[in-house]
Amino acid sequence: MVAPKKPGPPGLSGASELFQLLRDGRPRTRAELADTTGLARSTIGLRLDALLELGLIRPIGEGASSGGRPPSQFALDPAARVVVGADLGATHATIAVADLSGAILLTHREALAIADGPERVLTWVVDETRSLLVEAGRSSADLLAVGVGLPGPVEHDTGRPVNPPIMPGWDGFDVPGWIFDALGVPALVDNDVNIMAIGEQSRSFPEVSDLLFVKVATGIGSGIISGGLLQRGAQGSAGDIGHVRIERGKGVACDCGNFGCLEAMASGPAIARQLRAEGADVETMSDVIELVRRNDLRAIRAVRQAGRDIGEVLTTCVSLVNPSVIVLGGSVTRAGEHLLAGVREVVYQSSTPLATEHLSIVQSRTAENAAVIGACILALQYALSPQAIERMSAR
Amino acid sequence: MVAPKKPGPPGLSGASELFQLLRDGRPRTRAELADTTGLARSTIGLRLDALLELGLIRPIGEGASSGGRPPSQFALDPAARVVVGADLGATHATIAVADLSGAILLTHREALAIADGPERVLTWVVDETRSLLVEAGRSSADLLAVGVGLPGPVEHDTGRPVNPPIMPGWDGFDVPGWIFDALGVPALVDNDVNIMAIGEQSRSFPEVSDLLFVKVATGIGSGIISGGLLQRGAQGSAGDIGHVRIERGKGVACDCGNFGCLEAMASGPAIARQLRAEGADVETMSDVIELVRRNDLRAIRAVRQAGRDIGEVLTTCVSLVNPSVIVLGGSVTRAGEHLLAGVREVVYQSSTPLATEHLSIVQSRTAENAAVIGACILALQYALSPQAIERMSAR
Repeated sequence: MVAPKKPGPPGLSGASELFQLLRDGRPRTRAELADTTGLARSTIGLRLDALLELGLIRPIGEGASSGGRPPSQFALDPAARVVVGADLGATHATIAVADLSGAILLTHREALAIADGPERVLTWVVDETRSLLVEAGRSSADLLAVGVGLPGPVEHDTGRPVNPPIMPGWDGFDVPGWIFDALGVPALVDNDVNIMAIGEQSRSFPEVSDLLFVKVATGIGSGIISGGLLQRGAQGSAGDIGHVRIERGKGVACDCGNFGCLEAMASGPAIARQLRAEGADVETMSDVIELVRRNDLRAIRAVRQAGRDIGEVLTTCVSLVNPSVIVLGGSVTRAGEHLLAGVREVVYQSSTPLATEHLSIVQSRTAENAAVIGACILALQYALSPQAIERMSAR
Repeated sequence: MVAPKKPGPPGLSGASELFQLLRDGRPRTRAELADTTGLARSTIGLRLDALLELGLIRPIGEGASSGGRPPSQFALDPAARVVVGADLGATHATIAVADLSGAILLTHREALAIADGPERVLTWVVDETRSLLVEAGRSSADLLAVGVGLPGPVEHDTGRPVNPPIMPGWDGFDVPGWIFDALGVPALVDNDVNIMAIGEQSRSFPEVSDLLFVKVATGIGSGIISGGLLQRGAQGSAGDIGHVRIERGKGVACDCGNFGCLEAMASGPAIARQLRAEGADVETMSDVIELVRRNDLRAIRAVRQAGRDIGEVLTTCVSLVNPSVIVLGGSVTRAGEHLLAGVREVVYQSSTPLATEHLSIVQSRTAENAAVIGACILALQYALSPQAIERMSAR
């Protein structure tokens, strides 16, 4: 086959490649860009025009404001556009607006039951997005994407929840489709633990490429970052350690229908249940935390044992994925150092020396903001990806 | 800062980018390449010349052999260059030459003790590389890189073994440096299980992006491919499941100094030891396999129990990394379906339904060639990477 002699003028379809270069924020001249990419000057010009028109980059330097002459340098404009991230928990929701560098501009948090179903909850997300944009002095045209974290398993490619146990009405619901219809932007959806891992890593451990984020709350789950990337696994269930069986759990029934699961022994409700069985006056994990703060020995012992149980499972995780940092987050970690102490005790005792020599086990630094930061980063990762820029510039 | 007006002519430094496009083997015209990349025609010309000079691509089509006119199309030439892969086991070594598509051209296997130390073993690798090249009718200039698999932990970035238990004299030895001095090409070094995972995936499961390869032999280890990439972890020890403790192992001493490790219960030597303790006349795992083949019930039971023990650890691995395929390889799998049956029994019983719904657990299809194929692929992944092509064309 002989190709046509003249394949037509190069489209704008390569603008994304140029943009990936400019994402780091360092200003560059046309000449530098041509030199680095090997692109023809005319192509550089077309692509810069496309990115300027999309409002993703800005002219910088001497020529920028002089009128007639073209500006000499270009860089990412962090303030040019925004993304929104929403962390939807079982009973509370947090939503934030971030700029293109990932800096949070505004946050809003309120009580909201995920069990109210997708329409009500997502209507809240859409309404709050609109009012946050107004509050931030931005127009809806400035919004590039929305990131959403849900308290249950999500098929990441389609953004649909998959048999989520505590989310009646959400199974298979087209979250991205619903948000697109309302806001006209793509939505990226993932489970809460994955976005917490992304948030914690990007904010507190940007230099760490192998990190395990473990959430201990009503349930127990983890998000795995390996080789710098979040790992979702074949069905998106990677990190799902809540239903691994532990020794102490023998015979204890779990809500999942199985016996001896980690979650049935070391989650917030499980700790409270065990303390109640010992005669303590506790209803919820908050009561347990209150007892721990008053130095109640029985409560401290229960929390530390939960840490040991979690450590038992994490020992295998450490051997398998060899992280350099394990971060503990979620409401149960508000009980202070006791949970962490139990985890450390078992992991450092039982894992191989090679795997623990440089391993840190720490409390979450972003704490309750990990998820909403992660939701914003998830939206940004997509919104600034070559594919997304490609699509924007093709419009 | 104002950049210099004229940044000099574009070098050959972008040839690698063009090559990544041509790696798939599909012939393309200059016009197609210019259109796809947006590169100036003159740049395309310079870079094609560089790749032709490196012998990585070949002209194809009408104009190719007509003398005066430049050829109309270009594509990767799989036969242009070769790589060598060496799988160095405890007592045997296999070495192979592969072309740029990864097809094995020649293989050679012989008895070789890794405990002879790095100089003797690597001298064998170098000598065999030279004679295989001659046998394949290739010159040493055709060799692009060497991949090496070792039976112990390796710091992948430097290619140096790290405290390898069965490799006296190898600790910290500069394997790539030694090979470079002898053969003048880069060497990529990894542990045997990682290269087996790479070999098995590339040959038998090219469409699978989440695969766990478990080797059961003198030791037990695994190689993890997540999101299509081999995961090495922070210290390169990812997949190291041999020293995870299992329930049945309580009180049993392991060679590592700890108690109850999987390897102390389910490896080849451990199975043979347990059968000896029951009065069976077995020395090594080969004797056990012989008994299994003669339908000895005691031996079958021991192998199946080892499978269950491995399954106990894999259950957590399945929850954590959510693979779609688990491949069992290594000498113990020669005992037939019994090991596999034990693994399946426990994994399908104890893992969460979501993680096992689409999970296959199978025997290695590449069997004893997995490692040497993987060593070749490891060498190729490097030799054809943008960085390596960049370096070649800069010379």
